[in-house]
Amino acid sequence: MPHLWPKFLVIFCFSFIFPYPISSLQSAVNVWPKPRTLSWPKPLATLLSPSFNITSPSHQHLSPAVNRYLRLVLTEHHRPLFNPSVNLTSPALETLSISVADLSALLHHGVNESYTLSIPTGSVTAYLRAETVWGAMRGLETFSQLVWDEPSRVAVGLYVWDSPLFPHRGVMLDTSRNFYGVKDILRTIEAMSANKLNVFHWHITDSQSFPLVVPSEPDLAAKGSYGADMQYSPADVARIIQFGLERGVRILPEIDSPGHTGSWAEAYPEIVACANMFWWPAGAKWSDRLASEPGTGHLNPLNPKTYQVLKNVIRDVVNLFPEPFYHSGADEIVPGCWKADPSIQSFLSDGGTLSNLLEMFVNSTLPYMVSFNRTVVYWEDVLLDDNIRVDSSFLPRENTILQSWNNGVNNTKRIVEAGYRAIVSSSEYYYLDCGHGEFVGNDSEYDQGGKSVDGGSWCGPFKTWETIYNYDITYGLSKAEAELVLGGEVALWSEQADSVVLDSRIWPRASALAETLWSGNRDETGKKRYAEATDRLNEWRHRMVSRGIGAEPIQPLWCIRNPGMCNTVNVIFA
Amino acid sequence: MPHLWPKFLVIFCFSFIFPYPISSLQSAVNVWPKPRTLSWPKPLATLLSPSFNITSPSHQHLSPAVNRYLRLVLTEHHRPLFNPSVNLTSPALETLSISVADLSALLHHGVNESYTLSIPTGSVTAYLRAETVWGAMRGLETFSQLVWDEPSRVAVGLYVWDSPLFPHRGVMLDTSRNFYGVKDILRTIEAMSANKLNVFHWHITDSQSFPLVVPSEPDLAAKGSYGADMQYSPADVARIIQFGLERGVRILPEIDSPGHTGSWAEAYPEIVACANMFWWPAGAKWSDRLASEPGTGHLNPLNPKTYQVLKNVIRDVVNLFPEPFYHSGADEIVPGCWKADPSIQSFLSDGGTLSNLLEMFVNSTLPYMVSFNRTVVYWEDVLLDDNIRVDSSFLPRENTILQSWNNGVNNTKRIVEAGYRAIVSSSEYYYLDCGHGEFVGNDSEYDQGGKSVDGGSWCGPFKTWETIYNYDITYGLSKAEAELVLGGEVALWSEQADSVVLDSRIWPRASALAETLWSGNRDETGKKRYAEATDRLNEWRHRMVSRGIGAEPIQPLWCIRNPGMCNTVNVIFA
Repeated sequence: MPHLWPKFLVIFCFSFIFPYPISSLQSAVNVWPKPRTLSWPKPLATLLSPSFNITSPSHQHLSPAVNRYLRLVLTEHHRPLFNPSVNLTSPALETLSISVADLSALLHHGVNESYTLSIPTGSVTAYLRAETVWGAMRGLETFSQLVWDEPSRVAVGLYVWDSPLFPHRGVMLDTSRNFYGVKDILRTIEAMSANKLNVFHWHITDSQSFPLVVPSEPDLAAKGSYGADMQYSPADVARIIQFGLERGVRILPEIDSPGHTGSWAEAYPEIVACANMFWWPAGAKWSDRLASEPGTGHLNPLNPKTYQVLKNVIRDVVNLFPEPFYHSGADEIVPGCWKADPSIQSFLSDGGTLSNLLEMFVNSTLPYMVSFNRTVVYWEDVLLDDNIRVDSSFLPRENTILQSWNNGVNNTKRIVEAGYRAIVSSSEYYYLDCGHGEFVGNDSEYDQGGKSVDGGSWCGPFKTWETIYNYDITYGLSKAEAELVLGGEVALWSEQADSVVLDSRIWPRASALAETLWSGNRDETGKKRYAEATDRLNEWRHRMVSRGIGAEPIQPLWCIRNPGMCNTVNVIFA
Repeated sequence: MPHLWPKFLVIFCFSFIFPYPISSLQSAVNVWPKPRTLSWPKPLATLLSPSFNITSPSHQHLSPAVNRYLRLVLTEHHRPLFNPSVNLTSPALETLSISVADLSALLHHGVNESYTLSIPTGSVTAYLRAETVWGAMRGLETFSQLVWDEPSRVAVGLYVWDSPLFPHRGVMLDTSRNFYGVKDILRTIEAMSANKLNVFHWHITDSQSFPLVVPSEPDLAAKGSYGADMQYSPADVARIIQFGLERGVRILPEIDSPGHTGSWAEAYPEIVACANMFWWPAGAKWSDRLASEPGTGHLNPLNPKTYQVLKNVIRDVVNLFPEPFYHSGADEIVPGCWKADPSIQSFLSDGGTLSNLLEMFVNSTLPYMVSFNRTVVYWEDVLLDDNIRVDSSFLPRENTILQSWNNGVNNTKRIVEAGYRAIVSSSEYYYLDCGHGEFVGNDSEYDQGGKSVDGGSWCGPFKTWETIYNYDITYGLSKAEAELVLGGEVALWSEQADSVVLDSRIWPRASALAETLWSGNRDETGKKRYAEATDRLNEWRHRMVSRGIGAEPIQPLWCIRNPGMCNTVNVIFA
């Protein structure tokens, strides 16, 4: 509806000048993540016509999304925990009309996800306009959250302009330590899409298991997975990617190497140093351990066979995953493991260093990944590790992104100061596994007195949704540095997670990430808005649960029924 | 089979002298909680005959249990994570023959739960003998855990003598802050029974909601519950009690009072002091708050109507629940609440004290509960609170039990030193809700810097299964004092829990409690056996999941597949 555009602009200029009121109604007619600008001056709603339809340009990924959202808004009949008091107007809404400026934009990093949504009062038609189909999907989700009740009603006189603050908003899932079925992954992607998260970072392989079937190296999964029923076939991968495309979620594969590769030794023991050894030799110092946790094994950079196998893997993964980012790991290379290998011992006694080994490895693999037009993502260790790291000359800035996980904002700053783009997954804020105890057995700390420091977890305590919500990932950076921060990811490492607890570990905490990276964590006055977000997150968690996502509760129902009464300080945001 | 008894005795004398070996096989053919004595000298098994049957005396509660276990062992076909290597013998097992010495013993505190189980080699019949039907149910569970695989096989040449160390082994669930459906409660009781836990402590009501329909005071639930669909009817209660009886689980009701009664004010505002007030007045000191958390209201001991309503509740609850223990709460009486009431202000200005008020309350209610032959359980506060407590003369030792929750072993010691029986629910070890963050909103601690001390939870960090397993609840007590410790309960307060996370919050951590209270946490040499327990708990968690209990995982699958390799110190218990 191009002729409506000028009107839209006027409306949004208006709403920029007079920001929306923070109304308790908005926690009931609630969009999560909160749009950048939402104007709903009067609490008006209308019925959704039983013949309601969504019109859109035909597009292989958008059209399935349209069908899905149409079904959702017609059947969801969401009952808010705190029922909004609205005035019902007419006529019923008959149509949501979608227009997309550029139907060809691919689901790549930085693609335009902005949209505008206009649901005018007194109109049978609402309008969703986006630059790309991916923005249209974001707008469809917003629209779906504005519909509630049975018969379905929808907020009207409502205008949204929306666009994310950060282009990279992700969830990392480790499918190696424990296996997740394809259904688990699809359900996670579905929930991500509902939260406007756009990157599923799939930490597929690690030392514990190799669940990915790599066509040219079939033995890796055949021997290195947990079993034939715990593998991802090429068809599974294709299904997951397709599912993500229809929901605006990129599937970013990680094949961690050269560390975290113990499982590769089941097929190729000759290319893995220190495989299948006890991780922390009796009497050894912590610095002489063979792995960062039980499950030893690092690829041996000195063995030509290593590159033969690894390049087969890289080539197949590139073919399986169209995503232009390729995550290559390179975290937690432990000196003791490489030092345990005789060939490496010779290399070291000839004057080589462990960092030389890593440089050799990077130099033999990064150009190969780049040759497939891939941007390589590494964990920060490859540049920042205290012991084993490469010179930045080995890491071309145009082809390399570093993912930060230690030392909060400090390491993010070190990465961007060095001129690299950064993805933030600070373990102090964004690690979803922390605080549920240590998984390692036979630890003498558990004796009478029963101390359990920080939940017995290296990265404890548990990262609450508030901790995640309030983390400012560009804190302390200059404007230019901040522009190198692409976004962030919450991470679920699976030592103590599997299908049973997947949803409750991720949700609603990843929703906190979603909002903070989409529209920020501050109100128009610059004040942290977490207190105001509590009621809204309660409602959103409730809606996610009714959509089949087992998100954990954050408050007693009483708190939602009694707005403001569960605050620390008695301020009602109304 | 009385003629077999002498043979049994010989076998068990033998096994007392030569304790069972701690074998890695036992983590695969695994009974949780570990029996006091299990002898299985050779790894032998036989098939379970397709016509396998269980014979037992007819009993209204045992017979349904027998039918349930028969169905389970015939259909479960459990696949252990680590398949035990056994030698298969014949003949197939045709019958489990149950005999019970005393069919009339009621499911009360201290009832004999001991049993012996004999599965002889070369016999078509196994024998389960118990003093009571409740012991027989424990033995049936043990037998079911000795069956695995498809076709079903069962360990043979195996002898168990078993009996709990502590008579009171419970799970406390708060159904007021968030509501749980009857199905959730039944599933929890089912899982408790599988873990040989015997007390479901049902914290039914609190300030947030009053979900119990009390026949003579129907307005309490009608107005104080979260809604008509979030109430427990008398029929629901009867169903839960019946379900517990068929599983050897007592249902111990708690009607918390005089504190934690805000929800009563919806029906009777006149009997509740400080109801529906903001819990922490602006500018007030913490010591002047009106409640321990959002949701204010204490019954007013000065109003005769208070006792009229409360006695109706007590009488109805006594009629609904046959259980001889009655939990009356009496925790967290907050000075600010009572002080906010005008009638209490007069009482205080006339020279009365807040402790006088509590004494008046206890003196007006405890004898009434005792008149129904109830033993009254209170939280420790009633005797130990710093500010508001009663003199011990108000709490007859023969009718009163105190449940400890603060200061670990110290408060347990104070209770038993005062001559009272104690139930241990130390918040430092046994509170299952801790470590998932604070639920209170608008807390300024969440600002840049993002500190989240102890998970933002007053009782953080998260209590790991190891923390629970290794807690010695009688530590530092004399033998006579220790005999006053009836047992313990893990507690799930529901500020941040509901149906969605119920299973994963409770299991397998309540399993850790179950074993430590059933057979202890030490091996025959007195050494803590948690390291050895890890593999067994992994297997048990796996079995619980396949039985429909969403217990959280404690380790990567890799650890179970590689015994000993996930230890801190390389000791394999084989």
